[in-house]
Amino acid sequence: MLMPHHFQITERVQFSETDMAGIVHFSNFFRYMERVEHAFFRSLGMSIIDPPEHGADRVGWPRVHASCDFMAPLKFEEEFRIELLVEEVRDKVIRYLIRLWHQDGTLAGEGRLTTACVRKDPESGRMKAVSIPERIRSKIEAAPAEMLARPGR
Amino acid sequence: MLMPHHFQITERVQFSETDMAGIVHFSNFFRYMERVEHAFFRSLGMSIIDPPEHGADRVGWPRVHASCDFMAPLKFEEEFRIELLVEEVRDKVIRYLIRLWHQDGTLAGEGRLTTACVRKDPESGRMKAVSIPERIRSKIEAAPAEMLARPGR
Amino acid sequence: MLMPHHFQITERVQFSETDMAGIVHFSNFFRYMERVEHAFFRSLGMSIIDPPEHGADRVGWPRVHASCDFMAPLKFEEEFRIELLVEEVRDKVIRYLIRLWHQDGTLAGEGRLTTACVRKDPESGRMKAVSIPERIRSKIEAAPAEMLARPGR
Amino acid sequence: MLMPHHFQITERVQFSETDMAGIVHFSNFFRYMERVEHAFFRSLGMSIIDPPEHGADRVGWPRVHASCDFMAPLKFEEEFRIELLVEEVRDKVIRYLIRLWHQDGTLAGEGRLTTACVRKDPESGRMKAVSIPERIRSKIEAAPAEMLARPGR
Repeated sequence: MLMPHHFQITERVQFSETDMAGIVHFSNFFRYMERVEHAFFRSLGMSIIDPPEHGADRVGWPRVHASCDFMAPLKFEEEFRIELLVEEVRDKVIRYLIRLWHQDGTLAGEGRLTTACVRKDPESGRMKAVSIPERIRSKIEAAPAEMLARPGR
Repeated sequence: MLMPHHFQITERVQFSETDMAGIVHFSNFFRYMERVEHAFFRSLGMSIIDPPEHGADRVGWPRVHASCDFMAPLKFEEEFRIELLVEEVRDKVIRYLIRLWHQDGTLAGEGRLTTACVRKDPESGRMKAVSIPERIRSKIEAAPAEMLARPGR
Repeated sequence: MLMPHHFQITERVQFSETDMAGIVHFSNFFRYMERVEHAFFRSLGMSIIDPPEHGADRVGWPRVHASCDFMAPLKFEEEFRIELLVEEVRDKVIRYLIRLWHQDGTLAGEGRLTTACVRKDPESGRMKAVSIPERIRSKIEAAPAEMLARPGR
Repeated sequence: MLMPHHFQITERVQFSETDMAGIVHFSNFFRYMERVEHAFFRSLGMSIIDPPEHGADRVGWPRVHASCDFMAPLKFEEEFRIELLVEEVRDKVIRYLIRLWHQDGTLAGEGRLTTACVRKDPESGRMKAVSIPERIRSKIEAAPAEMLARPGR
């Protein structure tokens, strides 16, 4: 399960994540997607918040794009699985494909996160997209195409 | 401003909507998008929660898809404009195009919501996509193509 | 650890729970407090959402009061412990004392939740405080006084 | 309405603030309380985030304590009033009393926030409670006792 392109965690729906329709509010699917992204970084011995020891080499990962298809609602106290696949690693960008699975093996949702590698420009003080540092790049690779194809239902 | 395909509201970023990167957390862009959708319904004399008086004709609007491109961060206490355009009205589905604008006229984000019109099936008790009732359908139409094209920057 | 008056869980701070001050937003301490309350019910073979099989005997647990003292901030990716103690069980009310602990044994916060046992009145349709059903009451008791005293620091 | 000890705003309950019980989740009462606190500061020409121009004099306002009594639930799309009263101004601390009012004049909730005035210690880098700067202290005073007494219902 610990590969440089695949990672998964199991979570339980919390009451405060539901809405008056009795299901998880759709905005929380994006929080679940971020949760597995950050756990993926930890699984590789890193943190999405680059530690201060990296000094001027420190990078951040703002979102460029996020999307989700909602197939079946998640409900209170349900345990579900969040599966992350690295869809593409480009020079300055990583794209993730993330699936949320009910315990019976049906898809609750499938989403994508595109994150850019940025560093604070010392002159302007603004965030600027930069090449992913080798110390990170060497740990992450795209998943094989067959893992990325949406599973039939 | 009150047309059946265009609506906008102005909001201010709240402290609890920011994250440790000092900007609005990306999941809150989706809450802002929902905020304008619900205000749009109110502007047409309706509520996204169909009132009980509609009885067996009551419908709900779960999300089928949501996406957002993030162009420029929103910051604490900033006032910003959320603009909704109806991109498409199909038999059972409405698609919205939603733009979040900084006060200086630059785009903070541009997203889409696809919502399905559903009704509880009296036999199975499950939600089922149905044709949008005429009382709602007659109030909403797609925006002209030129309004939907992403503005140059 | 599985006693009818004491329960604890370990959680990790998520990015979306932080604010621009770089720490967990204080409102999320209350969500953490609820998280342990619901896990406590699960540990006793129950759910805070009474299952439909209890029919007319179904009860709910709205909050009457919530408070928290904030001693030391919780930070991103930090693992922390949430400890629940039953402070008092009255006829219609349960009061919890909840402590949030850093891994080094210092207190991050100490809070209280007072919840009322309610049932929908069949005539008025409104929620009304009722005696805690014996099936629940028999599983929960107040913690000994020495466990409730705030630990010295 | 613009007095140095009293301020109020009107808000509308958003869908994402509700939970599966069909009412506003109790943790959001604390976000509403913060909302009026920050609007109060703006009404006095200040920001809760001290602007950089104040340099070494910049202060922050972490919470020391928060509490709320919940009287009557807030519901989706309901407009409600949030009323802030300054309960006490001490050398390093401000205490607020905040009431949330339904439109029919009944109380939805009554809470308190205790915030400490802190400044980053240049030597240790840690936050340390300090006397409220005169530029802020001169703008805020405690409300008269009769305004602070809980209104009869």
